[in-house]
Amino acid sequence: MRLRLTIAYDGTPFRGWAAQPGHPTVEAALRAALEETFASVATLAVAGRTDTGVHALANVATVDVEGGPPPERAAAALNTHLPDEISIVEAAEAAPGFHARHSATARSYRYRIFTRATPSPFELRRSWWLPRPLDLDALSDAAALLRGEHDFRAFTPTETQHEVFVRVVERAEWIRHGDHLDFEITADSYLRHMVRTLVGTMADGIDLAPLLAGADRAAAGRTAPPWGLYLVAVAYSADGR
Amino acid sequence: MRLRLTIAYDGTPFRGWAAQPGHPTVEAALRAALEETFASVATLAVAGRTDTGVHALANVATVDVEGGPPPERAAAALNTHLPDEISIVEAAEAAPGFHARHSATARSYRYRIFTRATPSPFELRRSWWLPRPLDLDALSDAAALLRGEHDFRAFTPTETQHEVFVRVVERAEWIRHGDHLDFEITADSYLRHMVRTLVGTMADGIDLAPLLAGADRAAAGRTAPPWGLYLVAVAYSADGR
Repeated sequence: MRLRLTIAYDGTPFRGWAAQPGHPTVEAALRAALEETFASVATLAVAGRTDTGVHALANVATVDVEGGPPPERAAAALNTHLPDEISIVEAAEAAPGFHARHSATARSYRYRIFTRATPSPFELRRSWWLPRPLDLDALSDAAALLRGEHDFRAFTPTETQHEVFVRVVERAEWIRHGDHLDFEITADSYLRHMVRTLVGTMADGIDLAPLLAGADRAAAGRTAPPWGLYLVAVAYSADGR
Repeated sequence: MRLRLTIAYDGTPFRGWAAQPGHPTVEAALRAALEETFASVATLAVAGRTDTGVHALANVATVDVEGGPPPERAAAALNTHLPDEISIVEAAEAAPGFHARHSATARSYRYRIFTRATPSPFELRRSWWLPRPLDLDALSDAAALLRGEHDFRAFTPTETQHEVFVRVVERAEWIRHGDHLDFEITADSYLRHMVRTLVGTMADGIDLAPLLAGADRAAAGRTAPPWGLYLVAVAYSADGR
């Protein structure tokens, strides 16, 4: 049976999603819980391979399992074996041929900035505390430039395993919620550190226009810290393939 | 100079507000920060002496200090000496005669329940996870009974230092925000564990009507856990006395 898992995690204690020997990762914790819950567990596929410290509200994984609880009881069973920082929000049997990564058509991320002059204990490791005036109109103008197809190589480290640097941004906007400024972005996929470097560049007030056609990394701004970033949703085509 | 401090804290690591030798408390941490910041620090007064594990968004304290930064720089100065779980949100010179506890006319608390079937890592120690159906209409009817003047002795431990058990509730209502149910209450003051025992009793579906005229503690329900409770605001009369 192929399980489709919707997973929330607080990225703080993890060296990102992908298993690395000797380091705590979300993948390793989930694999251990799966192995405690099912007799047989094949390779995990995931929609978003998040970096160290990055959070997820609804990452999606698929895994073939045998010999365990039925899908409707899998979330509760897995949660008893997971640390508090990881929760299976939903578990269901996947449609035939569905693959968490290959079937995904888009990923949505949120980057959260907390703008109050004084810090909040409830924002620790949940947002980037940037207690200085940020111009929402200027940020919105910058976000508008991002929409569409661009070469984003200025927003990823120079030493890279990416071969293609063009990505298609479907949605990019800034929204104010009280003392928070949230950057919401939806794209087909992302370069490494791309969302955080876009946010750092916009927050520094650097003009994005000359950077969106394959400029050097040095031309862009700093990379915003990981604890403001959330993988919010993964989109799939209607037939779930 | 008398300082008026507005304080936010995550109650998780503290044995409540009030200093107790050998235990971490908010008062002790704040006093230590004050003593690092000012040459002379008198007794602290506070509007809400919160219990172990209870949070505050805007508790209010007053303290007479000498020989340190001016009021407009006091919040930043104190925050550099406070643990991340405590933040001075605002510091100002208090009006003459203003006292954080004696001048307070009302305190508002929020109790947060998280109702989703599966837990969330972002709700850990921030709300009471109660993954079962709660009837908002029935809760709202119960809250309506609380408004006005009642003898609340059923909602505080039998062994008590309180001598008067009558309190005046100005506002009591339940509000749904997505997967959260928030109980919002404003009263002149509270008995120990009163808000948490009201919430536990309402969540258990126990009829409040016979309990509001001095019933025994045994007639009420359980005491909800501290990590769902937030001191949200303290009200003062317009002249700030």
